[in-house]
Amino acid sequence: MDPLLDRFISESRLMVDEALDRYIPSPEIEPRVLHEAMRYSLFAGGKRVRPILAMAAADMIGADKFCVIPLAAALECIHTYSLIHDDLPPMDDDDLRRGKLTSHKVFGESTAILAGDALLTVAFEILSGFETSRIIPSHTIVEVIRDVAVACGSRGLIAGQIMDMIYEGEAADDSIIEKIMLNKTGALIRASVTNGARLAGANRKEIDILFQFGEKLGKIFQIKDDLLDLEGDATKLGKAVRKDDKRGKATYPSVHGPDRSKKLVMSLLAEANKMIEPFGKKAQILILLAEYVSQRVN
Amino acid sequence: MDPLLDRFISESRLMVDEALDRYIPSPEIEPRVLHEAMRYSLFAGGKRVRPILAMAAADMIGADKFCVIPLAAALECIHTYSLIHDDLPPMDDDDLRRGKLTSHKVFGESTAILAGDALLTVAFEILSGFETSRIIPSHTIVEVIRDVAVACGSRGLIAGQIMDMIYEGEAADDSIIEKIMLNKTGALIRASVTNGARLAGANRKEIDILFQFGEKLGKIFQIKDDLLDLEGDATKLGKAVRKDDKRGKATYPSVHGPDRSKKLVMSLLAEANKMIEPFGKKAQILILLAEYVSQRVN
Repeated sequence: MDPLLDRFISESRLMVDEALDRYIPSPEIEPRVLHEAMRYSLFAGGKRVRPILAMAAADMIGADKFCVIPLAAALECIHTYSLIHDDLPPMDDDDLRRGKLTSHKVFGESTAILAGDALLTVAFEILSGFETSRIIPSHTIVEVIRDVAVACGSRGLIAGQIMDMIYEGEAADDSIIEKIMLNKTGALIRASVTNGARLAGANRKEIDILFQFGEKLGKIFQIKDDLLDLEGDATKLGKAVRKDDKRGKATYPSVHGPDRSKKLVMSLLAEANKMIEPFGKKAQILILLAEYVSQRVN
Repeated sequence: MDPLLDRFISESRLMVDEALDRYIPSPEIEPRVLHEAMRYSLFAGGKRVRPILAMAAADMIGADKFCVIPLAAALECIHTYSLIHDDLPPMDDDDLRRGKLTSHKVFGESTAILAGDALLTVAFEILSGFETSRIIPSHTIVEVIRDVAVACGSRGLIAGQIMDMIYEGEAADDSIIEKIMLNKTGALIRASVTNGARLAGANRKEIDILFQFGEKLGKIFQIKDDLLDLEGDATKLGKAVRKDDKRGKATYPSVHGPDRSKKLVMSLLAEANKMIEPFGKKAQILILLAEYVSQRVN
């Protein structure tokens, strides 16, 4: 990995982990099992892709990544809640995630449901937290909260989740696969880069560019995820593989095969990078991150 | 019912129902089944207690209840999400709610989980919505969002839900029952009156009084709920009764019996009313509402 990116990722992960530890009540605080379950999934080895993207976007616009920590932490809480609920027996019924037992396997279904609910809720508590308010104008905080809520709502992330289920085992066409990608993964990835930039004081045009960039990156991320499910190594991934195929999930690789999928990833990466060319050298970290996402092995 | 209260309740319900219909995407919008499920539970005959309380508190401080509609609608979305998740098979496993089949009975468990998630999420979208922003200062909106998020988070509503499960079948003492009441029902009732007042421009002291008032009212509401479960009529209530007893739920009436519970309701009502005496005649609707809550039969 490029040493510049390596350092950016390590620093960002450290900052967001430290913030999450501060934001989520300790397992000493009642109800203990709930806080334990929230922490179990939050600190189960996530890559912190969304927080890092938010920080990279803020950095590109010219703000210290420190300023967007509440956003970074909130995004990770939302991502984690969506995984906990997605893994539940009535949903994808997964036993393993990142090489560890899923929340409902450890804490039972009811606690897993509530831990997910609590992580979604705390995201909005964090976003409206005073730490942000001291640096960022209140009207910008309200805009960010609205944008994040829309991104993870019934026409964003949750739309993706439900379509993913609805089209299981169905012969889905490309427009459906595109919609699932744009919502299930894309919405929160988009919200990460656009709101990181928004908090850093980006103007409308810059946010629009990052919206497009985030859309491409979201697709890269999802296709890569589906490719890893198709071809990846269960040990490296820490979860069962070839599940999508067994379930008949509507994914790009399952319809178009791995070769065409890899070609699409490369062309999306080129498009994404071209998109942020106007930012010049300041876009370096985001470009390196997009490459990293397109090449990841877990 | 007092005609003044009757009119206030009818007007408020109409306003909040109209707002919810506007805020929640139509079932024509994809993903249809999700929006249908969100609407099914939202429009299943809820009494709109929390919205009405928020509007009454705003009215008492001197604002038109129109100003707090987004808060009122958001509170009802949160309340409805908590019912949908609470009714799920791994939780209370209830088939009926307000005389209608529960969400998971109609739409299946996975859609019910996601409909709950989407209602919680849309609450924050509504709270940060532009309609509020035009009238209310942004910093107040951020405060309200934070307060509502805390009220329905892991040390509020969700703490109540999980304690309610943990102490099922256990010999719970009064301090546990008190905590369950304060969190499960109390937190959101408290947030309704304090934030209704906050949006209306109440000062710190007024909000503190309403916090105390909301705490008493939350207890009245929960004890009354538990009494109705113990003594109520399943037809009037639209749900199964005597479930708490069967499950060994830790409630005040199950430990202290109906007579002592009714006495406690009356003394809490007197305390609550005394608390808002400083507001004089302007507190009339809130006082009538507290009486209504303490006497309700469904």
